[in-house]
Amino acid sequence: MSGFDRVWLNANLATMDGGLGVIEDGAVAVQDGRIAWVGPRAALPVSDAPVTDCGGAWILPGLIDCHTHLVFGANRAGEFEQRLAGATYEQIARAGGGIFSTVRATRAASEEELFVAARPRLEGLLAEGVTTVEIKSGYGLDLETELKMLRVARRLGDAAPVSVATSLLAAHAIPPGHPGGAEAFTDWVVAEAIPAAATAGLADAVDAFCEGIAFSPAQTTRVFEAARAHGLPVKLHADQLSDLGGAALAARFSALSADHLEHANAAGLAAMAAAGTVAVLLPGATYFIREARHPDIAAMRAAGLRMALSTDMNPGSSPARSLLLMLNLGCTLFRLTVEEALLGVTAHAAAALGLADRGRLAVGLRADFATYAVSRPAELCYWIGGNPCTGRVVAGH
Amino acid sequence: MSGFDRVWLNANLATMDGGLGVIEDGAVAVQDGRIAWVGPRAALPVSDAPVTDCGGAWILPGLIDCHTHLVFGANRAGEFEQRLAGATYEQIARAGGGIFSTVRATRAASEEELFVAARPRLEGLLAEGVTTVEIKSGYGLDLETELKMLRVARRLGDAAPVSVATSLLAAHAIPPGHPGGAEAFTDWVVAEAIPAAATAGLADAVDAFCEGIAFSPAQTTRVFEAARAHGLPVKLHADQLSDLGGAALAARFSALSADHLEHANAAGLAAMAAAGTVAVLLPGATYFIREARHPDIAAMRAAGLRMALSTDMNPGSSPARSLLLMLNLGCTLFRLTVEEALLGVTAHAAAALGLADRGRLAVGLRADFATYAVSRPAELCYWIGGNPCTGRVVAGH
Ligand SMILES: [Zn+2]
Ligand SMILES: [Zn+2]
Repeated sequence: MSGFDRVWLNANLATMDGGLGVIEDGAVAVQDGRIAWVGPRAALPVSDAPVTDCGGAWILPGLIDCHTHLVFGANRAGEFEQRLAGATYEQIARAGGGIFSTVRATRAASEEELFVAARPRLEGLLAEGVTTVEIKSGYGLDLETELKMLRVARRLGDAAPVSVATSLLAAHAIPPGHPGGAEAFTDWVVAEAIPAAATAGLADAVDAFCEGIAFSPAQTTRVFEAARAHGLPVKLHADQLSDLGGAALAARFSALSADHLEHANAAGLAAMAAAGTVAVLLPGATYFIREARHPDIAAMRAAGLRMALSTDMNPGSSPARSLLLMLNLGCTLFRLTVEEALLGVTAHAAAALGLADRGRLAVGLRADFATYAVSRPAELCYWIGGNPCTGRVVAGH
Repeated sequence: MSGFDRVWLNANLATMDGGLGVIEDGAVAVQDGRIAWVGPRAALPVSDAPVTDCGGAWILPGLIDCHTHLVFGANRAGEFEQRLAGATYEQIARAGGGIFSTVRATRAASEEELFVAARPRLEGLLAEGVTTVEIKSGYGLDLETELKMLRVARRLGDAAPVSVATSLLAAHAIPPGHPGGAEAFTDWVVAEAIPAAATAGLADAVDAFCEGIAFSPAQTTRVFEAARAHGLPVKLHADQLSDLGGAALAARFSALSADHLEHANAAGLAAMAAAGTVAVLLPGATYFIREARHPDIAAMRAAGLRMALSTDMNPGSSPARSLLLMLNLGCTLFRLTVEEALLGVTAHAAAALGLADRGRLAVGLRADFATYAVSRPAELCYWIGGNPCTGRVVAGH
């Protein structure tokens, strides 16, 4: 008899292993926190392990939100209200709004305050069946606050049944009036922020924002070289507002992912595919800032790119608190297929974090999965709002 | 001392009475299911009534979703999946998809099955602080099923702490192959469906779909005259896909509301304003069917129209299960202000149902309200997903 710890039955499976991977009337068995068996129930080995009856639900790999800024001080609902009432971006900036208002609030908040504010945002994701979340720093832009944000991210992962992957995004914006401007600020990222985060073990990756209003390709290259010197993989906010060759730059460093990509060129996308760099699509931002230019999904398909899908949860350009809703936005705005959207929050999101041990229902992988009261996986993409998640299993528990 | 039954304290209020109506550090007192007092806490009359401490939350009138088709058999996630995979509307219709697949499933479902399927969709709205929901028939198109849908709607209202307003929408579509076509089907609506629903007390209003693919203005007029003869107020799906003068037609019958209105003309909007007819905006449908034409909000403002905002929850064109999300969609897509959006799910939604006893925090109105853990009302419009509702009071309980 098989020594399973527990068996999940009376369920249909979407294994997300190379596609939807539908197994109707399937079973999943877990041993030592890993998936020990997955397949049609009729073929399940005999076992005296305890059984969880899923009541006809669908089981998917635990969802993965691979791009969030969910630790921050103060939301920007007031700015949203002012903009709808007719205020221009300039007026809002002059009144102290924009990203630097988030930086000020995040600096001013204690570690405990940031933790308490972020907790319900994380819980909302978990309630939808999310089992892994990436969280970036980037609202500190000074050493103390960048590390504080990363410590909060780690604490969030310790306090709840979820894996948290952290990214140091010190190269997010250049603080106004920084002596020496972008170049000097890049010096600081390279010489201080990356070494400190690496030494403290607080960053699983290094991210940057390569854009006319942020860091140039040359400055981004310096950031990536420093990351490489400290053994950290990189990610990139690339080609969101203009084509600076961010996709190709990310590929050159074998980045885990390049994210946004509205303006990426075909050569850059091809380079990403060759390098194994995942394209992370962020439809919440496209929707919220009413960006007319969409990422070129047809070109990504043609290049054979793996596409992930994420909330980009942040207070300025994507106050999105639901990964399920991103499935609907990705399908509705970007015309992703159901299979592409669901791979985007499972297998391909795992790849965007360099986590080979999750994102699919397959033997040997972490036993992270979620159950949904739906008639077919497409329902997860179809509804606008609502939450059919009925259960969540993390490392077999 | 005042004989209040209960007092709510330690809250900020958005009374939605003529605007946001903000009262910081306010109080609400309830007696016999009605609001007996509302104002600044400092002015609250002395009372020994029990107190609910709202912990600094915001209190708004209970939300009102004034346009839903939430009773139906079978969702259309499969059709959504096929369309994303490249199937045309024609191919889907030929494969038995579209609205008539919903009609078939709704006819085939028992009253109990429809109730069980609708219940979680309703519960999702209630969890967001909704206290009144309108529910339409319209997937029967035969007497038995139209009445069955309305009975399910009534049962939903009996089974949960929520007011349900029903609308007979027998004039929703013409069943394919109906002998005599639209004209003969209109005869049936006028001679059988409306009298039967009125006699059974199952309909609070009569609705119709005036459109090239549905009922002509002349046929709609006959439906409205029959409604009037039975003492029932009317509503109209008007000018969604083309301008058939639906807005003016609705106004001519002093309709409670005209809904959609993407193609309504200025004269029609002015006639609605003069008649007191509310404009119901349905951004979920605009978003989901990717309709480029938006309702003319500037013209509605200029006409002095009251605008409501609703989910239009239905399986074909707006599978929207969150009214809070419609606040964000209304602001993001239609550029409603925060005040307009919030009036649209409170005071103006009440007007769209002809319910003068709710939708505002004001003395004498039903004590229907909800509490939200937000820093300001704008947060209810700002987040994409998530649910900050912390409590719900219906008729004082
Ligand atoms: Zn980002
Ligand atoms: Zn409708």
